[in-house]
Amino acid sequence: MTNTQVTLVQIDNYGPWTVTPEPRREADLQTLQSRLYADISQFVGNRNGYVFFTRFDNMIAVTNGLDLEDHRLLQESVGNRYPVTLSLGVATGTTPAQALSDATSLIQDAGSAQDENRREILDGRTIDTAYRTAEDLQIAHFDVIDATGEYTDELNAFDSFIEIEQGYASLMRYMRHAHDSLSFFVGGDNIIVVCPDLERADYVDAIEHVQSEVDVALQVGVGRGESAHDAGYAAKHALERCRARGTQVELDW
Amino acid sequence: MTNTQVTLVQIDNYGPWTVTPEPRREADLQTLQSRLYADISQFVGNRNGYVFFTRFDNMIAVTNGLDLEDHRLLQESVGNRYPVTLSLGVATGTTPAQALSDATSLIQDAGSAQDENRREILDGRTIDTAYRTAEDLQIAHFDVIDATGEYTDELNAFDSFIEIEQGYASLMRYMRHAHDSLSFFVGGDNIIVVCPDLERADYVDAIEHVQSEVDVALQVGVGRGESAHDAGYAAKHALERCRARGTQVELDW
Amino acid sequence: MTNTQVTLVQIDNYGPWTVTPEPRREADLQTLQSRLYADISQFVGNRNGYVFFTRFDNMIAVTNGLDLEDHRLLQESVGNRYPVTLSLGVATGTTPAQALSDATSLIQDAGSAQDENRREILDGRTIDTAYRTAEDLQIAHFDVIDATGEYTDELNAFDSFIEIEQGYASLMRYMRHAHDSLSFFVGGDNIIVVCPDLERADYVDAIEHVQSEVDVALQVGVGRGESAHDAGYAAKHALERCRARGTQVELDW
Amino acid sequence: MTNTQVTLVQIDNYGPWTVTPEPRREADLQTLQSRLYADISQFVGNRNGYVFFTRFDNMIAVTNGLDLEDHRLLQESVGNRYPVTLSLGVATGTTPAQALSDATSLIQDAGSAQDENRREILDGRTIDTAYRTAEDLQIAHFDVIDATGEYTDELNAFDSFIEIEQGYASLMRYMRHAHDSLSFFVGGDNIIVVCPDLERADYVDAIEHVQSEVDVALQVGVGRGESAHDAGYAAKHALERCRARGTQVELDW
Repeated sequence: MTNTQVTLVQIDNYGPWTVTPEPRREADLQTLQSRLYADISQFVGNRNGYVFFTRFDNMIAVTNGLDLEDHRLLQESVGNRYPVTLSLGVATGTTPAQALSDATSLIQDAGSAQDENRREILDGRTIDTAYRTAEDLQIAHFDVIDATGEYTDELNAFDSFIEIEQGYASLMRYMRHAHDSLSFFVGGDNIIVVCPDLERADYVDAIEHVQSEVDVALQVGVGRGESAHDAGYAAKHALERCRARGTQVELDW
Repeated sequence: MTNTQVTLVQIDNYGPWTVTPEPRREADLQTLQSRLYADISQFVGNRNGYVFFTRFDNMIAVTNGLDLEDHRLLQESVGNRYPVTLSLGVATGTTPAQALSDATSLIQDAGSAQDENRREILDGRTIDTAYRTAEDLQIAHFDVIDATGEYTDELNAFDSFIEIEQGYASLMRYMRHAHDSLSFFVGGDNIIVVCPDLERADYVDAIEHVQSEVDVALQVGVGRGESAHDAGYAAKHALERCRARGTQVELDW
Repeated sequence: MTNTQVTLVQIDNYGPWTVTPEPRREADLQTLQSRLYADISQFVGNRNGYVFFTRFDNMIAVTNGLDLEDHRLLQESVGNRYPVTLSLGVATGTTPAQALSDATSLIQDAGSAQDENRREILDGRTIDTAYRTAEDLQIAHFDVIDATGEYTDELNAFDSFIEIEQGYASLMRYMRHAHDSLSFFVGGDNIIVVCPDLERADYVDAIEHVQSEVDVALQVGVGRGESAHDAGYAAKHALERCRARGTQVELDW
Repeated sequence: MTNTQVTLVQIDNYGPWTVTPEPRREADLQTLQSRLYADISQFVGNRNGYVFFTRFDNMIAVTNGLDLEDHRLLQESVGNRYPVTLSLGVATGTTPAQALSDATSLIQDAGSAQDENRREILDGRTIDTAYRTAEDLQIAHFDVIDATGEYTDELNAFDSFIEIEQGYASLMRYMRHAHDSLSFFVGGDNIIVVCPDLERADYVDAIEHVQSEVDVALQVGVGRGESAHDAGYAAKHALERCRARGTQVELDW
């Protein structure tokens, strides 16, 4: 049974900050957002978690293996090095969407994202080391079959991008509504989905749904583990087997 | 008449590199991609251009103001500091999509994105300083009306994200097919669109299309200028007027 | 009794890399070196260690609290994101210089810094959690008395710098030869020294030595702890007491 | 005749910021300082200048090729992305030390480095493009003869470092007092010196001085150019000729 620990990372009062006293140069905002995300990716990733850039002012992380002190330290380190601060809500659940929903409420209950008095919230609960198991996480790594041959080397770069976005938008809605799963585009033609306990048939159905809804052909490798890195790395290896064998769904167990 | 200079930035042989000799830690790939993008954003942004992360292994930039020597220097600097290299194709056109299409072809003609012998292509033409005008670029900055009140403070963070993604997917398809424009999600609830010569009615129609197709309410500020920064900054100011006046479309001229 | 765990971080084959096939732009080398150091500072610092930039191609870290798996992960992460790789040697000792000496030998025994076949050495031993104590580290934080009033606001910026460098050079030699301690300039007018078990009189003598040798007036706060962060943070607080009380030596115990 | 344009980059009110409301984690300060320096190195370096980390809160740059608008943009970009701001003073002179002295005065006249009301000073004059020549800069790149064989592979890493620091301290004092030159350690065993019009005999004397004062054997390549990059890159090539020919002084003209 999965037990996903999800952290919502929200920049405090970001919207107003970006236009006060005047709008800031867009290129600088992009640089700030990307480097902040990269730092959080290192911090969380070095503890075997994953964080996804999502909306950049709101980032979603899978943090099995991090405790509240780790979260506090991340918050302190960012506060020392950036012109913005972070609020963090952590929760766990048998489905990723449930955990995220609870994590979101922890921050929402403390105040609006644009309430200038709401700063550096840190709230929630993490999974005790003693209760962690190798089934806590199930992560699926999808990519588009032969994206390079079908899109990158054939269409102009934006039309390739549109195709991949359509595939992502279709998969994200389906996985959220059918399976309470959270899907994230991670670059190239790759989508990582954080799932509850799903089975081969569930992935076959998802791939068929996307093929028929938007005509994008996906393949998927799925892994399980005690941490996002363990499950995700197993998923990457399973995806390599799809490529080697020409199959569309490979589970690592 | 717009004259958009577009550069396609493509990482050479990236797919194979990410899995050779073994798949690499996902958190490290995310960090690498984000920091590479941030560096390109500084380089291009400091010359008044804009670059969008797009697929991270393929990034689209609006580079009016940068010449081929600037592009060569960017390529050299990245080659000195990263474990990957970049290929760059530059082209101009009366529509952004046309310019991007030509830029893409320059790189595709030199070889596949996964051809390990195709490295550091630099090809294309830039606009001579003498031929630049204050109408070269038209940039529209859309955001979701009251995203914080409607979504961020109300829904869980992923459901907020789904709504914004649906708005983006709808707008991106519409603007590409109706107006040969290129749309990019830039974080929060913001979408920047690079356009040819459009008029108020075109923006009103786009907003109505997205409202009826996916029920997301957008507002937009539009600016023109000799560079992406000039046009984009004017667009940001126009968007502030939408907020102040409660209007949905504001042009900066 | 102190028990300092020291890690030598050495970039593999760096000298040749910087000039092959041609010398690389100096500004790019500076950027690479500084960002690599910053990343290591975050990784080590988030585990309560300290790392000093030292020569940039050779960096010295105080890593009480990090085990060999942490070192291996740092090595892997850098290998995934930079065009260079790291070799790491770890050792412990009752004096910092002894620990560093042993750490250096571990790497030297494996091959020259410019041997292109010597890559990613990882060797040594770390202190088991069960054997760590609150006296393992003694860290002294020196700064120049009223550097701003004496130098920064009075002399040109290079002559200020020369004065601070002379103070550093004098202190570093003295503390190495008299006390097997390792001294590092950390910016501004600050020098952090990693010491064995020293007493108040030892610090008074060090300050007098520097005053008479190069006429630079130092003050110092000293702290002890189980980690570099614990000891160093206590030292910072002690230094604040020097400023508040007008004293030259303050111990945190 | 050289005409060096020097910019002093000073972080506003940094000392107080590092301890307010409490001292900040040392590892975070090191990360912030190093990444800020790296960004400035990219900005200045991409315009063919050089910047040296110096004291980190005060950095010295050779900015021939950058105008005041470039300086203003750097200041704005840093202000958008860091929790600190920069003051910049720019001046030119026939000797580097004279230019730096004037640049320092521009900032000192505006207020103390720790005056919380003195923020983002931008003052001084840059060289008009029309007046730049290929003799404006003379840059010397020194390194220690066979540092790897003599030190890195033989001594412990701190004793190697002490030797290199002694060589640097000796050279920096001599070049400042004999020739109004500014010397900067740039990592490894490398020292870059920004000089006025010097001749072969001056470099021979400098090397003999350091050999006899601290018993460190240096070699040097010297270049001239219109920008720091042009002169410095020529110096690197000249230094390669020292290695190839076994000579101690090589001029690129």
